[in-house]
Amino acid sequence: MINAKGKVFVLTGPSGVGKGTIVSEVLKKVDNIYLSISATTRQKREGENEGVHYFFKTKEEFNRMIKSDEFLEHAEFAGDSYGSPKFSINNYLSCGKDVLLEIEVQGAKQVKEKCTDAILIFLAPPSFEALEERLIKRNTESIDKVKVRLKKAKEEMQEVNLFHYLVINDNLNEAIDNVISIIKAERCKIK
Amino acid sequence: MINAKGKVFVLTGPSGVGKGTIVSEVLKKVDNIYLSISATTRQKREGENEGVHYFFKTKEEFNRMIKSDEFLEHAEFAGDSYGSPKFSINNYLSCGKDVLLEIEVQGAKQVKEKCTDAILIFLAPPSFEALEERLIKRNTESIDKVKVRLKKAKEEMQEVNLFHYLVINDNLNEAIDNVISIIKAERCKIK
Repeated sequence: MINAKGKVFVLTGPSGVGKGTIVSEVLKKVDNIYLSISATTRQKREGENEGVHYFFKTKEEFNRMIKSDEFLEHAEFAGDSYGSPKFSINNYLSCGKDVLLEIEVQGAKQVKEKCTDAILIFLAPPSFEALEERLIKRNTESIDKVKVRLKKAKEEMQEVNLFHYLVINDNLNEAIDNVISIIKAERCKIK
Repeated sequence: MINAKGKVFVLTGPSGVGKGTIVSEVLKKVDNIYLSISATTRQKREGENEGVHYFFKTKEEFNRMIKSDEFLEHAEFAGDSYGSPKFSINNYLSCGKDVLLEIEVQGAKQVKEKCTDAILIFLAPPSFEALEERLIKRNTESIDKVKVRLKKAKEEMQEVNLFHYLVINDNLNEAIDNVISIIKAERCKIK
């Protein structure tokens, strides 16, 4: 009745919406769920560590991984590449552990196609103004890159209906609570 | 995207499994959800109040309500009749409020057919031994009635696949948390 294999949860949404903050809280508060560490070609930000936040790759290394079909999904975003290596995800799932992917919208759409049981959560900002403010405050990129991300965010918001759940990141604690509730509820689901 | 109308949540499961305890905690902890008060022909138990726990009806009154199609569901159980009056449920739903029904398995199956959007949660005991112990401890009925309930419970457990979610009432706080999570997750669902 209940699937012994682990489940795949995907948290996606526009860049800057707060996926990272929510993911780290969810991992603290929910048992038996593990983060899939993405590979990326983007520059390491302050406070980020290799193998903890990302596997940082050169463009050449990343392309080699694509060619040898090592990614569940991969996508380009604002000039950088991101991908979810299959090996660690499959390891977790085969032991009955759940896996959480924190990925861009393009990648989430690939997961939806390749992994039809995956549970897809779209995290949205309360407004575009709020998102703009967050991206500018984060101060990790040029205004031009922020503009690219905002334009992309508007397009991504049009695709929210492709996903299973919508969580609005207005009040952070409520958003965390809603994501945790989705994970717990999905674990109670009868196939 | 999100339905403005309220949602119907049904908590069902074998008699004695602890539906009542869980429902009262859920109502304390979740906003904007209201209990549908059932009508019943069964004897009032100690501590139960008219219009709070049930609307207590004579068999004649109950049959008149069936005839005038006043119930969303109604069922006989261990010699007594139970039913969910439509009027209060519809009032809540039309104002965008969610409604929680705590009903027997037979009735839950009727709700599934009549109200296809309803979310059906099956509460199960960790074991039959645990259920038997609870029913005997409750000390509200003769051993014969307890036996009828236990036999019924075994049949009902065979039908768990008709429902959307399964919550095991092993640890009470975890069961409450899971039911609350299901309600919150369903509220985030994208249609």
